[in-house]
Amino acid sequence: MNIKNFLEPKGIAIIGASKAKEKIGWQILSNLIDGEYKGKIFPINLKEKEIAGLSVYQNVKAVKEKIDLAVIVIPADFVAAEVANCGEKGIKNIIIISSGFAEVGEEGKKREEKIKELAEKYNLNILGPNCLGVISSPAKLDLTFAQAKAREGNLAFISQSGAIGSAVLDWIQDKNIGFSHFVSLGNQAVMKENDFFEFFLKDKKTDFVLAYLEEMEDGEKFMEIVSRLAKVKPVAVLKAGKSQAGREAALSHTGSLAASAQSVEAGLRRAGAISLSALDDLFNLLTLWQRKTKYNNSDLFMVSNAGGPLVIAMDSLEENKLALGKFSASLEKSLKKKMPSLAGVHNPFDILGDAGADRYEKSLEEILAEKYVSNLLILLTPQTATEVEKTAEIIARLGKKYPEKMICTSFIGGEAVGKVKNILAEGKIANFSYPEQALSALGRFLNYQAQAAKVKPFNMRRQTAVLKKQENKQEDYLESFRFLEKYKIPFVKTLAIKTESDLKKLKYPIALKIVGPKIIHKTENSLVLNLKNSEEAAAAWKNLKADAGNYIIAQEMNMGGAEIIVGFKRDLHFGPILMVGAGGIYAEVWQDVQLEVEDLTRERALAMIKKLKIYPVLAGARGQESSDIFALADVIVNVARLARENLDIKELDINPIFVKKKGVVAVDARIIK
Amino acid sequence: MNIKNFLEPKGIAIIGASKAKEKIGWQILSNLIDGEYKGKIFPINLKEKEIAGLSVYQNVKAVKEKIDLAVIVIPADFVAAEVANCGEKGIKNIIIISSGFAEVGEEGKKREEKIKELAEKYNLNILGPNCLGVISSPAKLDLTFAQAKAREGNLAFISQSGAIGSAVLDWIQDKNIGFSHFVSLGNQAVMKENDFFEFFLKDKKTDFVLAYLEEMEDGEKFMEIVSRLAKVKPVAVLKAGKSQAGREAALSHTGSLAASAQSVEAGLRRAGAISLSALDDLFNLLTLWQRKTKYNNSDLFMVSNAGGPLVIAMDSLEENKLALGKFSASLEKSLKKKMPSLAGVHNPFDILGDAGADRYEKSLEEILAEKYVSNLLILLTPQTATEVEKTAEIIARLGKKYPEKMICTSFIGGEAVGKVKNILAEGKIANFSYPEQALSALGRFLNYQAQAAKVKPFNMRRQTAVLKKQENKQEDYLESFRFLEKYKIPFVKTLAIKTESDLKKLKYPIALKIVGPKIIHKTENSLVLNLKNSEEAAAAWKNLKADAGNYIIAQEMNMGGAEIIVGFKRDLHFGPILMVGAGGIYAEVWQDVQLEVEDLTRERALAMIKKLKIYPVLAGARGQESSDIFALADVIVNVARLARENLDIKELDINPIFVKKKGVVAVDARIIK
Repeated sequence: MNIKNFLEPKGIAIIGASKAKEKIGWQILSNLIDGEYKGKIFPINLKEKEIAGLSVYQNVKAVKEKIDLAVIVIPADFVAAEVANCGEKGIKNIIIISSGFAEVGEEGKKREEKIKELAEKYNLNILGPNCLGVISSPAKLDLTFAQAKAREGNLAFISQSGAIGSAVLDWIQDKNIGFSHFVSLGNQAVMKENDFFEFFLKDKKTDFVLAYLEEMEDGEKFMEIVSRLAKVKPVAVLKAGKSQAGREAALSHTGSLAASAQSVEAGLRRAGAISLSALDDLFNLLTLWQRKTKYNNSDLFMVSNAGGPLVIAMDSLEENKLALGKFSASLEKSLKKKMPSLAGVHNPFDILGDAGADRYEKSLEEILAEKYVSNLLILLTPQTATEVEKTAEIIARLGKKYPEKMICTSFIGGEAVGKVKNILAEGKIANFSYPEQALSALGRFLNYQAQAAKVKPFNMRRQTAVLKKQENKQEDYLESFRFLEKYKIPFVKTLAIKTESDLKKLKYPIALKIVGPKIIHKTENSLVLNLKNSEEAAAAWKNLKADAGNYIIAQEMNMGGAEIIVGFKRDLHFGPILMVGAGGIYAEVWQDVQLEVEDLTRERALAMIKKLKIYPVLAGARGQESSDIFALADVIVNVARLARENLDIKELDINPIFVKKKGVVAVDARIIK
Repeated sequence: MNIKNFLEPKGIAIIGASKAKEKIGWQILSNLIDGEYKGKIFPINLKEKEIAGLSVYQNVKAVKEKIDLAVIVIPADFVAAEVANCGEKGIKNIIIISSGFAEVGEEGKKREEKIKELAEKYNLNILGPNCLGVISSPAKLDLTFAQAKAREGNLAFISQSGAIGSAVLDWIQDKNIGFSHFVSLGNQAVMKENDFFEFFLKDKKTDFVLAYLEEMEDGEKFMEIVSRLAKVKPVAVLKAGKSQAGREAALSHTGSLAASAQSVEAGLRRAGAISLSALDDLFNLLTLWQRKTKYNNSDLFMVSNAGGPLVIAMDSLEENKLALGKFSASLEKSLKKKMPSLAGVHNPFDILGDAGADRYEKSLEEILAEKYVSNLLILLTPQTATEVEKTAEIIARLGKKYPEKMICTSFIGGEAVGKVKNILAEGKIANFSYPEQALSALGRFLNYQAQAAKVKPFNMRRQTAVLKKQENKQEDYLESFRFLEKYKIPFVKTLAIKTESDLKKLKYPIALKIVGPKIIHKTENSLVLNLKNSEEAAAAWKNLKADAGNYIIAQEMNMGGAEIIVGFKRDLHFGPILMVGAGGIYAEVWQDVQLEVEDLTRERALAMIKKLKIYPVLAGARGQESSDIFALADVIVNVARLARENLDIKELDINPIFVKKKGVVAVDARIIK
C-alpha cells in the first residue's frame, strides 16, 4: 500500500463540501484551510458554485487536475457511487467520513460490502467509513471534523474509536506534545491499523506510536510489523475488551470477533509493544512522552521533601518492575556536606520536610550532574517551609539543562501545587498528580526500553486460516500418542487391551482407563490406578465397561517428577499460542501458565518455564529432585513446530507430562481438530 | 481520655508565641486568630509584652485563668520544662509542635522519654511531638502552621505524616469537602490514632474518617474501636509500607516495627475499614466523598456518549468488585421512544457519539427518576456534536435535584473538558479525570457500604503481649500432636519407635520419619514412605540414623482427601492471625491462603475456605470426592481458641491436614513458642 500518497496528497477533493457551518462538509474543509494545507483543494457539491473562495465542481470527474485523495462526507446511500467515480477518475486514496455502514446493522453491512468490492476493483486505499478523519503534520493536513485543532509533533496516534481520538485531541491541546499523524480507523473496511504501523516504521517525523484498538483482526501481521517498529521507536497499545465483561461489550460495540485477552497479551509481548490497560495508563504515558528522552539505563532515582510519599512509592516499585539506582560514593560525600545532618543521603533521597527551594536546587543539581542518573522522579508536598513556585522554576531550568534525562515530578496537593503546572510544563517536565501515576508510566516505559533491542523480528507464517472450519473433532487417543511421538514427545508405555493376555506386555504397576472420543477429562471417568500385577489387572479389566466407541487402555505407572501441562491453542488472530504450566488435575485451579507465540526458541521456552510459580519445585526446592527443564523446553519447541506443520489442529493439551531428573514422559494428551 | 476538652478547649496557651512572621510561633497564633476562635488565647513569651493585641505572659503559671490546652513551639531542649509547668498549672492537654525528638536519633529519644514520664506523672494528653497541629471545626480551632487554611466540613482526617497532612489540606482548598477535625499525629509519644478514632465514633460533626498511618502499634485496639466506628460512618485507612521495600523504607522513616502487610489487611478487613493502597486511592475517595450520599444499593449504572470508554470501564468492573444494575422494563420502553433507534437501551447505556446536551438530559432525567438507581457514572468525550458545557450544567442541576444519589462523572480529555470542572463542582458532582479512578473509588465505597452493617464489634483480648520474648523454641514433635488433640484436631496414628517391636503396633502402610527440634521441613530430611508391612518397616528403620536430640517416628499412611494447611502466627500488633490454605509441600509455591483475626466464628471460617482457589477441589470438582469443609472449619475455629488460650505460642502450622469425605486427619504440625 502506498500510504505516503495517502498521508501527503498534493490534491484533495472534498465530496460533500458545504457552506453550512454546522455541517461536517464545512468543518473538514475549514480545518483543512486553517491548517495551511499547501496543495490544491477541490470542493465537490451539486448546488454550490463557490465555497470559501474555492471553485466548486459537480463531481470528481469534472476536475481536470490530478487528485491524490478524496474525502467523502455525504449520506451513506450515495457513497458507493462517488467511490466508483473516484475509481474511474484514478483517485487511489479515499477517506469515508460518513457513517451508516457496518455499525448500523444489516443494511449498512451491505453498503460496506459494496465499498469493499469497489476498493478491490479499482485498487483503492479507503479509510473508514464511519471515521473522524486524518491529521498528517508533514503535509499540513487536518482532515478531521474534531472540535480541537491539530497540533504538530512527533506522536503517531491510531484510534479505532472516534470518541477516544477526540479525547486525545482535546487532552493534547495544552500539552508539550503533538501529532506527526492522527488516524481515526473507523470501520476498517479496507485500510487497517497494520497499514499505518508499517508506514510509521520508516516515517522520520514519528518518534512514538500510540494505538487504541478494539479488535486486532490480523494479529500475525501486527506482530510481524510491530516487532520491527518497536525496536526503533516506542509503540504502546491500549486493547479494550480484555476482561470477559469488556469483551462482550466490545463485541456488541464493534460487531467483531475478539481475540482472547491472553492471546493479545502474548502477541503484544512478542511484538515488543507497551501494553496499556486503561485510559489513565494511556494519558499517563502521554504525560511521560511529553519529555522525549534518550535511553541510558533503567535505574530510577527519587528525591522528596516528604517521607510518607516515598514509602508509598516504594510500595509500588515491585508492581511496576522498577529498580532504584545507587548514589556514587563521591555524590554521597558531596551531598552530606551540603544537606542537613539528619538527612540520610541515599536513593530514595528524603531532603526533609523543612526543605526550601534552595535545598531542592543543591541536591538536584548534584544528582543530575551524575552521568548514571537518567531517570529522576521529584516529589513535593506543600509544607510550611516549602517554596512551591521557586522549586518548580528550579526544576524547569534543570529540565532544559538536561534535555536527555527523564525528569518527572509529582507535586501532591491541590491549590498551591496546581498553580505551578505551567512552570513545570515550560521546562518540559513530565508532571503527574500522584506519584503512582508517574511510577506506573515509568515502569512501562523503562521496561519497554530495556527489552526493545532484544526483540527479534517476527516472520508471519499464516497459522490462523484453518480456524474457519466450525466442527471440533477429537483425535483418537492412541493415535494421538503415536502422532506426538513423531515430534519427539515421549509417552509412557500405553496399550489398547483387547484380550487378557495383552495385560502381560507391560511393566507393573499399571493403570487401566476407558478412553475414546466421548471422554475428555479422564479423571472423571472409569480409571483404576496402581494395579500391582497382571492378576490384579485382569480382575479390574473385567469390571470395566467401555461404551460404544470407547475402549480400554493400560498404561505403565512408574513416573515420578513434577506434573506439567504443555499445549497450544490456535487463536483466530494471533495463530498458535503455546502454553506451559503446572499440570495434573489441579491445572485449572492454579492457572499457573505462561504463554508464547509460535516462533519460540529453546531460550524463550526456558524463560517461560522459569516464570512459572511452580519453577522452584522444578529447580529442586523443598527436597524435591531438580528436574530436566531442558527436556521440557524441547517439548515446548517441538509442540510449536507441530502447530506450524499441522494447520488442521486447533488445540493440543499434553497433561500431565512428568518432568523427571533426566528426560520427560507424557501420560495423557488431547488433540482437537 | 477526655479528648473533647482537647479538641474544644476554652482557653489556649501558645508557649513560644512570636511576633516574627516567619516563625511557627506566629503562624500558629495567627491561624488561630484568623479562624475566629472564640475562647481565650494566652501567648507565652519571655521577651514580648504584647502580640497581636493580646497580653503576653512569661509562663503558663503566670496565667490566673483556666487553660484547657497548651501548644508548645519552642526548641526541643526547653520543651520538657514547659510540659512540667503545664502539669503543675493543671493544664491537661498539650500539643508539642516542636521537632527534635525520637525522629532525630538517640538524644531525641531521651527527650521524648522525658515527655512520656511527665505525661504519666501529671496524667496529660500530649499530641506530638514533631507534628503539624490540629484543626477542630466545632471549636473554630486552627492550631496548625500549614500554609493552607482550615475548611469546615464533615471529614475527620488523621495523618501520621505532616507532609501528607499538608497535601490533603492543600487539595481540599478548592473542593466540596472540609474538615470536622484534622489531626497531625507526629511521633505519637502519648496520644495515638486510636484515641481519635474513639472520639469520632460519637462526634456528631464527623461523617467520614480518613487516616494515613505508617505504623499501627495497637492493632487490637484499632479493631476494637474501628469495628464499631465503621459500622456507623465510613473509615478509610492508607497504611504505608505494605511491600517489603516500602516497609523497609517506613522502618528507617519512622523507626517503628511494622506489622506484616497481611496482618494489616486482615485487621482492616475485620474492622470493616476501607483499605487504600496509594495516594491516588486516597484522593479519589475524597473526590467521591465530596458528594455525601445515603446508601441504597450497590448497583452501578453508566451512561456514555462513547463506546470505547464503556468497554474499558467494563474491563475493570470485576477488579473493582462492582456489579451493574438493570434498567426496568418501563424505563427501557420509555427510553426507546426518546433515543435514536441505533442506541441499544440497556445498562451500560451508550447514547452514541452524536449525542448533544439534549440527549444526555432526556436519558439522565429518566434514569435518575428510577428509585433503584442509586449510583450513576456519566462518561463524556468531547466529540463534534458534544455540548460539553451545556451537558455539565444539566448534570449539575440533576446533582442538586437528587442529592441522595451518588452521581459521578468522567469527562475525558484536556482543554474542553477542563473548563467545566467548576460547573460540575457547583452541583457537588464527584468528577474524575479518568473512568478508572471513578470505578476504583466506587468499588471501595460501595463494597464498604454493602458489608458495613454486617461487621461485628471486635472485643480486644490482648493476644500480643507474649511477643516481647526473643527466643524461638520449637515444641517437641509428638507432644505437639497430643497437645493439638486436646483442641479436637485429630492426628493420624503416630508412634515413636524405640524397638523393632513398636513397628507392630500400626496399621500398614506406614511411613518412617526422623523428627526433632533440629528439623523443621520434614520433606527435606530422612523419610521413607509406603512401607507395606512390619518386615519392610524394620529393614528401613535399621537404616535410619537420628542425630542427637532427634528421634524416629512411624505414622500410618491411609489418608486420602485434599491436602490443606491450617495455622496461625501471632502478630505483634494485631494478635493471632489465623490461616487456612492449600497445603502439602507446594503450600509455599501456591500461596493460596486466607487470613482472619482470632475471634472468628465457624461461619467466617467457612467463608475463608470458600475464598480459597483450591475450594472447587474441596467442593468436588474434577471427579474428586467432595470434602468435609465443616470439619475443616471446626479445626480453624479450634486453632483460634488454642491461640487465645496459649499466649506463649507464637506460631502454629498444621501441614498437611487431609480433608476427607467425612472428617479431617492431620499428619504433621509445628509449634513455635
